[in-house]
Amino acid sequence: MEFLVRTEITPPDLPDDKLASLYDSERDRARELAEAGTLLRLWRIPGRRANYGLWSAPHATALHDALTSLPLWPYMDIEVHPLAAHPNDPSPISLE
Amino acid sequence: MEFLVRTEITPPDLPDDKLASLYDSERDRARELAEAGTLLRLWRIPGRRANYGLWSAPHATALHDALTSLPLWPYMDIEVHPLAAHPNDPSPISLE
Amino acid sequence: MEFLVRTEITPPDLPDDKLASLYDSERDRARELAEAGTLLRLWRIPGRRANYGLWSAPHATALHDALTSLPLWPYMDIEVHPLAAHPNDPSPISLE
Amino acid sequence: MEFLVRTEITPPDLPDDKLASLYDSERDRARELAEAGTLLRLWRIPGRRANYGLWSAPHATALHDALTSLPLWPYMDIEVHPLAAHPNDPSPISLE
Amino acid sequence: MEFLVRTEITPPDLPDDKLASLYDSERDRARELAEAGTLLRLWRIPGRRANYGLWSAPHATALHDALTSLPLWPYMDIEVHPLAAHPNDPSPISLE
Amino acid sequence: MEFLVRTEITPPDLPDDKLASLYDSERDRARELAEAGTLLRLWRIPGRRANYGLWSAPHATALHDALTSLPLWPYMDIEVHPLAAHPNDPSPISLE
Amino acid sequence: MEFLVRTEITPPDLPDDKLASLYDSERDRARELAEAGTLLRLWRIPGRRANYGLWSAPHATALHDALTSLPLWPYMDIEVHPLAAHPNDPSPISLE
Amino acid sequence: MEFLVRTEITPPDLPDDKLASLYDSERDRARELAEAGTLLRLWRIPGRRANYGLWSAPHATALHDALTSLPLWPYMDIEVHPLAAHPNDPSPISLE
Amino acid sequence: MEFLVRTEITPPDLPDDKLASLYDSERDRARELAEAGTLLRLWRIPGRRANYGLWSAPHATALHDALTSLPLWPYMDIEVHPLAAHPNDPSPISLE
Amino acid sequence: MEFLVRTEITPPDLPDDKLASLYDSERDRARELAEAGTLLRLWRIPGRRANYGLWSAPHATALHDALTSLPLWPYMDIEVHPLAAHPNDPSPISLE
Repeated sequence: MEFLVRTEITPPDLPDDKLASLYDSERDRARELAEAGTLLRLWRIPGRRANYGLWSAPHATALHDALTSLPLWPYMDIEVHPLAAHPNDPSPISLE
Repeated sequence: MEFLVRTEITPPDLPDDKLASLYDSERDRARELAEAGTLLRLWRIPGRRANYGLWSAPHATALHDALTSLPLWPYMDIEVHPLAAHPNDPSPISLE
Repeated sequence: MEFLVRTEITPPDLPDDKLASLYDSERDRARELAEAGTLLRLWRIPGRRANYGLWSAPHATALHDALTSLPLWPYMDIEVHPLAAHPNDPSPISLE
Repeated sequence: MEFLVRTEITPPDLPDDKLASLYDSERDRARELAEAGTLLRLWRIPGRRANYGLWSAPHATALHDALTSLPLWPYMDIEVHPLAAHPNDPSPISLE
Repeated sequence: MEFLVRTEITPPDLPDDKLASLYDSERDRARELAEAGTLLRLWRIPGRRANYGLWSAPHATALHDALTSLPLWPYMDIEVHPLAAHPNDPSPISLE
Repeated sequence: MEFLVRTEITPPDLPDDKLASLYDSERDRARELAEAGTLLRLWRIPGRRANYGLWSAPHATALHDALTSLPLWPYMDIEVHPLAAHPNDPSPISLE
Repeated sequence: MEFLVRTEITPPDLPDDKLASLYDSERDRARELAEAGTLLRLWRIPGRRANYGLWSAPHATALHDALTSLPLWPYMDIEVHPLAAHPNDPSPISLE
Repeated sequence: MEFLVRTEITPPDLPDDKLASLYDSERDRARELAEAGTLLRLWRIPGRRANYGLWSAPHATALHDALTSLPLWPYMDIEVHPLAAHPNDPSPISLE
Repeated sequence: MEFLVRTEITPPDLPDDKLASLYDSERDRARELAEAGTLLRLWRIPGRRANYGLWSAPHATALHDALTSLPLWPYMDIEVHPLAAHPNDPSPISLE
Repeated sequence: MEFLVRTEITPPDLPDDKLASLYDSERDRARELAEAGTLLRLWRIPGRRANYGLWSAPHATALHDALTSLPLWPYMDIEVHPLAAHPNDPSPISLE
């Protein structure tokens, strides 16, 4: 099942190197989630520290686990929108 | 450039066969836009006559032209969210 | 997976017997969905033609199919909230 | 009478062990309220430090007392939605 | 238990005498509900066809039954706010 | 003239005894305002540090003076809704 | 006591002469309310069939009576904001 | 041109005498703006540290300069509503 | 003085030729307002029958007159945002 | 492609000279973006530390890069509205 996820980030007040290291680990975890087929797409919302993501997970509990595994999660405000299949979708993913 | 497009549909009050024909032409036009690389993904918002779509167009004017070419457009309420590239996107499309 | 579903109903302008018959078939379909384990609970929002429902479905697509199978669906405005398991839930249902 | 309760938590800025101890006592108090038949169900809102709960209490005053007995209550933002019986509810609880 | 109830009325498009008769029966039913101790206070929201009411009912289901017994109910948009006892209330009613 | 007043309280960060003393003086001032016929009713909004109050004052200026005389006022967020007489009110107060 | 009143007008679907006559009687009634000291100021909200008005009335009930005496009242959506005296007001009106 | 200005004030955390001095200079500046014909009326929003003001300025730039000349401006959240002349205004000011 | 104007259009239910003629006269009036220096820029909001416009007028009353001179005005929902000069504006217009 | 950009600024808590220097570099960067044809117009929202800007960029990613190049960006809350060409625009820019 796919989910549209909107995320706003309020980065913590850390020294520059600690913050850079936090963002590095965020990038690494995002890559792992992408390789696992959980994170499908990610876009910046222009002008903001915010993004839209397209996620795939068996259910909302698995999605919650994936989202809270992100190093920046404590600094995120997240809204999850469940997505259903549309017959006109050009590139549907299989539902299993 | 990609756009996230949220659409609510209030179908017109038509006889069943006319409505079916309208939805058929909508499906056909969606397929054309998909083949042209304009409509990338489409999801139903569960429980509603509404959908999220991922669209690609050179600019907002081209997107407007694509959206208004849909046979159901006169019955749609549409919100367009511009999307920027995110460095952690697993499947970025090229910007040209 | 469970979903919290909020529904507002604007009943159609029908003669009384047709409306009663529509509500009868709604009750019958709700019973079928309850027997299938899809509709778990249903509450009225006091003072309104509206309700909260607790639903269970494998994914949002199956939930959409269940909701649109309700005879009153064309007259419903529906919001779906995905639910994740909470470790302190006294009566969790299994995730399969 | 049943209530749907939406809760957002902003955890206090405490050392890790104190925070863990606070969450332990929250879990214990939730278990007591479940055993007393006050807390019926609890779900996480995916991606957030937030939950929906299904509560049962004789009236809003008793519900308020139950909610404020939670150790995390000072850090909660709570919205209470009163629920009325629906004739199509598959598993109604008795009203006394 | 007490409830604060906000009501907006969109009166039906009826001939003047039918509308007057509808408002007369509304007044009569309000009086019955007041005598039964269900409707405690009623105020107009200035400038609007709307009111705030203070209601007393054992639970939300009884309140729903009282509200839907009003002749104008089909034309009302209603929001119910549950009220809990406050220790500084100058004129508390008993909770039974 | 009556007013419906909704109040949210964000208590100050004070030692426990100072906070208790502040709440004591709040209770005393509320009692004085009740005896003066200014504060008529007070209800907790369940789950929140918030309340609805029914107030009576000759005009908004007198109401403002009464509200700002509360010791907790600096920590309150207040919304005032003016109330007009309704012909179906079971217990109207006189307007002078 | 003064009130700030925001009004949106959805004019009825009437023949031009009937509508003109309705607006004439609105202007006449506004003039009467101005002469009575009830309507103090009136501004258009640019671009809209809407206005802000500054009104004076002993209480919300008298204001409601004044507003509902306007011939266009059935077509108005009105929000009333109560105003209190400010010590820095250059032109306060007396409170009696 | 007239403007309706809504202002919320979050006073700074200053010692009492400094705060009093700040409010004194605010009162003085308000008086100057009133004498200049820029500030026409000022009302408290009851229960809040907030006000509505009626201002007159040749254009929004001059209004901005007047508002930012207030000593409390750094602590204000301001919304400006432009006002147009209404033919039924009892006391119109001239437009030059 | 400049204004940012957001307009939503709900076109009337007219025969195609009448509607086309209405849009033609709208285009003609827009051109006149542009030549008069009143309408400076106009953009479509993608996907909607809506636009943002940049307008210049001596005051809100003149702007209201310009907007209501548009043939489509009766079918428009308009929000006006007043604009003030910014010192970093690359192309300021003169304020007279 | 043009974008309408609304920006709210919460300036950091810096000594006056550092803040002045920050605003100086903001002005310089705004000038560079104007010379590059990226920032077309800029207006203050009266009464607020906020502005509307008209920007031109090939796509949302380039716009994001321009916005985040502003020295004040970390203190900005930004909303981006994509703009499409309108046939009645008096001064359209070319789309390439």
